[in-house]
Amino acid sequence: MLTREGCPENILAIKDALDALEGRWKLLIMVSLVNGNKRFKEIAREIGITDKMLSKELKTLETNKLIKRDVYDTFPPTVEYSITAHGKSLDNVLESLSKWGKQHRKEVIG
Amino acid sequence: MLTREGCPENILAIKDALDALEGRWKLLIMVSLVNGNKRFKEIAREIGITDKMLSKELKTLETNKLIKRDVYDTFPPTVEYSITAHGKSLDNVLESLSKWGKQHRKEVIG
Repeated sequence: MLTREGCPENILAIKDALDALEGRWKLLIMVSLVNGNKRFKEIAREIGITDKMLSKELKTLETNKLIKRDVYDTFPPTVEYSITAHGKSLDNVLESLSKWGKQHRKEVIG
Repeated sequence: MLTREGCPENILAIKDALDALEGRWKLLIMVSLVNGNKRFKEIAREIGITDKMLSKELKTLETNKLIKRDVYDTFPPTVEYSITAHGKSLDNVLESLSKWGKQHRKEVIG
């Protein structure tokens, strides 16, 4: 189905990207971490996500090598999340989405 | 929750964008139409979506002023979908996602 016409290579690439980024939370978590490493509760507060969902999404982002989880040897242990080099490569996507979101608000949401 | 720290304006903008583009089909439909106006069945075939889902997604994209639906006075009537000016403004988003998808395939999917 992807070879008949149009731009099949692009469609495959966008499918891959959407698979890794699907849902409404992953990109918001990435934006939150772009501004610096954060702890679980800080991310939760900033983007307004439940703990259960955040925990699930962080695991998927880690599997996809977009973020990493560091445990520091304090008492109690401190856990911090940060963006990997591969995660940083999402910069252009985040920037273009953010620009477009602003434009869309003007145009449609009003 | 969006004003305490980080980059609240960007988070709002990306939330807006994700609201308009949520799910795995809308952006694929947009890519399909970037390459030229298409009829319902042509889009369905190209991206591999069911008729029911495609019909639903096209309506939402129309409501968000991203595509338009033209009915031509033939017998039987011809219906064609095309991208609006606002839809064209998604170009940068699609391009950055497509680039990133290729990179992600190399990096993670392998």
